[in-house]
Amino acid sequence: MSEKNISMAVIRRLPKYHRYLGDLLDKDIQRISSKELSEIIGFTASQIRQDLNNFGGFGQQGYGYNVEALHQEIGKILGLDKVYNAIVIGAGNLGQAISNYAGFKKAGFEIKALFDVNPRMIGIKMRDFEILDSEEAEDFVRKNNIDIAIVCIPKKGAQEIVDRLIGAGIKGVWNFAPIDLQVPKHIVVENVNLTESLYTLSYLMKDNE
Amino acid sequence: MSEKNISMAVIRRLPKYHRYLGDLLDKDIQRISSKELSEIIGFTASQIRQDLNNFGGFGQQGYGYNVEALHQEIGKILGLDKVYNAIVIGAGNLGQAISNYAGFKKAGFEIKALFDVNPRMIGIKMRDFEILDSEEAEDFVRKNNIDIAIVCIPKKGAQEIVDRLIGAGIKGVWNFAPIDLQVPKHIVVENVNLTESLYTLSYLMKDNE
Repeated sequence: MSEKNISMAVIRRLPKYHRYLGDLLDKDIQRISSKELSEIIGFTASQIRQDLNNFGGFGQQGYGYNVEALHQEIGKILGLDKVYNAIVIGAGNLGQAISNYAGFKKAGFEIKALFDVNPRMIGIKMRDFEILDSEEAEDFVRKNNIDIAIVCIPKKGAQEIVDRLIGAGIKGVWNFAPIDLQVPKHIVVENVNLTESLYTLSYLMKDNE
Repeated sequence: MSEKNISMAVIRRLPKYHRYLGDLLDKDIQRISSKELSEIIGFTASQIRQDLNNFGGFGQQGYGYNVEALHQEIGKILGLDKVYNAIVIGAGNLGQAISNYAGFKKAGFEIKALFDVNPRMIGIKMRDFEILDSEEAEDFVRKNNIDIAIVCIPKKGAQEIVDRLIGAGIKGVWNFAPIDLQVPKHIVVENVNLTESLYTLSYLMKDNE
């Protein structure tokens, strides 16, 4: 089955399906109808059937979905069975939080090193790796087949280091810096913009008064 | 002018306008056309005119937009001129990163305390406040007019503490726990789901191979 031409809106719903199906598995629930799934996830049953049809017929009329098979298949579609090597740029609070985040391994991301420009941070040993000098990041990317850079530094300097790391061979960026990175077409960027989320919360609070 | 019935899609674009207009101000640029703005932000000029028309006529034919006035007005629409009191639940790496995040004050959020259940964390002094016992959170909310709880704990326990804090009077939640919180209608929730973002990155990387 082809996964091409699936809209990003559908793709962005898949992690949620994956999470809820995982919860069902934890409760030993083996099969579920689109109607029951709808009550848990909050999407309509018709939306669920339409979403999952994009990837081939998972459901069976009168039986519903096999929870384990669907969970596994969505995991494969999301690429969770693949392993990517990652580095974190910026060893501040956020960089350290991200580096210690257990969710990574589950998603198939292996963090190989954490980089900083601050001489007082460089050399500090973390659980699985130590903090290295940002100057060495390109070299590290080349020698260790790093696929992804996780950018946890302020706006200033973010574009420059990303340019350098792309030159060294990374293929994707998980970007926490509040900047729209300019990258070549073959480079994947996923942004987490905390300020935009916070401003949205501010709007909703105000609107709610 | 009424701000009601503005779609969330428009609202979610406003922080981006605000950020780019702020960058222009930093460069002392006083006026800009929708076409120029389009080249910087990446939305079409027609989208920009349509978005900004929602909030009244900011632009002037043949003049373009007054950058400072527009920046200020969008800030007001986003409620950045209002001040809300916030607490952070969970003093792990993420909770500490969030607590030290300078973007808060700019958005009008004042963090008043950080809470944890771990006896070894309780009592530790941070820059502006100390880590308190989660058991005291409800009391603290009541006594200090706390508006918002920032939830930085794992899924387990998140719903329960949010229920308690809503009972104590909070009106909004900035939620980092990977769970869809169940809240009464008058409570605002803004989610930051790092796992969903990471899974999307995983998909995009796989799709890019």
